[in-house]
Amino acid sequence: MKTIVPAYLNETKDKVVMIDQTLLPCDEVFLELFKMEDIWEAIKMLRVRGAPAIGCAAGFGAYLSVKHANVTTVAQLRAKFEKDRDYLATSRPTAVNLFWALNRMTDRFDKEMDKSIEQIVAALLEESEEILAEDQRMGQAIGEHGLSLLKPGMGLLTHCNAGGLATSGVGTALAPMYCGDDKGFKFKIFADETRPLLQGSRLTAYELDKAGLDVTVICDGMASIVMKKGMIDAVLVGCDRVAANGDAANKIGTSGVAILAKEYGIPMYVLGPTSTIDMNTATGDDIEIELRDEEEIGNGFGRRTAPIGVKAFNPAFDVTDAKYITALITEKGIVYPPYKENIAKLFE
Amino acid sequence: MKTIVPAYLNETKDKVVMIDQTLLPCDEVFLELFKMEDIWEAIKMLRVRGAPAIGCAAGFGAYLSVKHANVTTVAQLRAKFEKDRDYLATSRPTAVNLFWALNRMTDRFDKEMDKSIEQIVAALLEESEEILAEDQRMGQAIGEHGLSLLKPGMGLLTHCNAGGLATSGVGTALAPMYCGDDKGFKFKIFADETRPLLQGSRLTAYELDKAGLDVTVICDGMASIVMKKGMIDAVLVGCDRVAANGDAANKIGTSGVAILAKEYGIPMYVLGPTSTIDMNTATGDDIEIELRDEEEIGNGFGRRTAPIGVKAFNPAFDVTDAKYITALITEKGIVYPPYKENIAKLFE
Repeated sequence: MKTIVPAYLNETKDKVVMIDQTLLPCDEVFLELFKMEDIWEAIKMLRVRGAPAIGCAAGFGAYLSVKHANVTTVAQLRAKFEKDRDYLATSRPTAVNLFWALNRMTDRFDKEMDKSIEQIVAALLEESEEILAEDQRMGQAIGEHGLSLLKPGMGLLTHCNAGGLATSGVGTALAPMYCGDDKGFKFKIFADETRPLLQGSRLTAYELDKAGLDVTVICDGMASIVMKKGMIDAVLVGCDRVAANGDAANKIGTSGVAILAKEYGIPMYVLGPTSTIDMNTATGDDIEIELRDEEEIGNGFGRRTAPIGVKAFNPAFDVTDAKYITALITEKGIVYPPYKENIAKLFE
Repeated sequence: MKTIVPAYLNETKDKVVMIDQTLLPCDEVFLELFKMEDIWEAIKMLRVRGAPAIGCAAGFGAYLSVKHANVTTVAQLRAKFEKDRDYLATSRPTAVNLFWALNRMTDRFDKEMDKSIEQIVAALLEESEEILAEDQRMGQAIGEHGLSLLKPGMGLLTHCNAGGLATSGVGTALAPMYCGDDKGFKFKIFADETRPLLQGSRLTAYELDKAGLDVTVICDGMASIVMKKGMIDAVLVGCDRVAANGDAANKIGTSGVAILAKEYGIPMYVLGPTSTIDMNTATGDDIEIELRDEEEIGNGFGRRTAPIGVKAFNPAFDVTDAKYITALITEKGIVYPPYKENIAKLFE
């Protein structure tokens, strides 16, 4: 597999190597981050983004805190760890995976409190690398399940970036593409550019091309014509939150792609870990949609694309109704309708 | 009506006033063009675009040729006219309206060959202003017919720019919006930004806002969410060519909007003059789709938005199947399905 891992520890385990995603696709810059504060800045400035990737970066940040601590007692080490952890938690307050990873590092520290400083540092190194390894195994499992639904040579459409750059391995929506490529499937992949922030053209196109897969960028409004021309055999997208009835929130534009897929008789697959399914959210109507800055639409490319003073409406996500989703693909397997019943079975 | 006329003669009828559309929406620059060569350059450089607007500009260009001719005989005037006319025809060789307008000016000259130079110049002035006036009456008629289908306060969605900037008055898709605004209808208008060339955010948003209408820009992938939220009561789009069966070619992205409208139960109206209907084109399958430069997608905003070397697919138009179109709105009236029969009646 030739995918990009957005954040990982170097061989001597004293710094994090991270591709600066804010500079893609123009510049390919790998940062070397020694300090917890550098990780904080990188998360804050979106140099690393995507929930699983943020979790991994935060875990490494917590590890670097103890690795480079200049202390003589475990109590001092713990005090520094807690201070740094709480600071790291402020880097992106809406990112659930950030807190999840930091809590996990804290739990591990709790377990090792009677050990030496050296042993605690080694344990937190192990924990942070295990967060990454688990994420990679999760993507691999999603990829294998998804691949079972695909055939060599298929045309695949994806929206936004649910790839290696958002996770730490093969991603979710892109996982079956990478797994299939390993087996010589030679997919023809189309990436919606995904306005306003262009994660599709900037990130998905970058990572697929980098890994040697066949990718073509289209504007979001071109999904209909490529489907009509028979160039698409399946749509694969990620998800930010899935409700108990199968309604799926994902990057703005996904629901439109799903409706087109249904109209053209093309299967629509939503891929993500079971941790994305929120059984406390009954339906998509209960998912609040974040409204983002209007300037992302009117001034998003370093120049104005809409007149100053004209309103813009900029929802970050939309909800795809379960009725448009052919299957949910998780690390535990493929879930078909009826979703309410079959999603519940995942958690039995 | 407070719409923008993209090209018109000044009061003393010796120059063309033209808004430079390539500078919108950042700068509002009105050019003053005295010479036929200036008109040629403006058409060539897309400072004026949209088939009807190009026709008007070309007519004025042919008039300026004789207006500023330094000749003493009608034969000399005719020679200069023909030379300039043939040069003007090279400004945008794919624009049918360009040739149509130049032929019309030639026909008028033919009729006046036995008159004086002064009389011929006056006749060509009259002809060029009549081309503009006819276009304005056409838009007005389309607007009134379209308005009969709308109610005050409705939410309207449009794609690309089929407005005054593309014609010489109220446009086609935007015509009912302007006509309704005159009657206090207070529509809530949403403009798809229309990637890759952003005619929606650059031009439609500009001209509607300038005329005091309530307009909100959205990215193309947001059409589904605004429809789902009940913000859209009708979709109004222009057309580049309509086949005899009602299939309609229009700016890329239109067919996707039409499918979403059908799914959400929202009427989808295609507006244009009957001259856009091509009875020699049986169905949309017979319409060839222009493929444009991939750089418009990957490098369209003065900076790269996709990695260098990654492919892009850039069709300029798509075809909306007649089954997704609620009605065609022309200057002669509203045409409902079955389109094959009812379109044919238009030309009886």
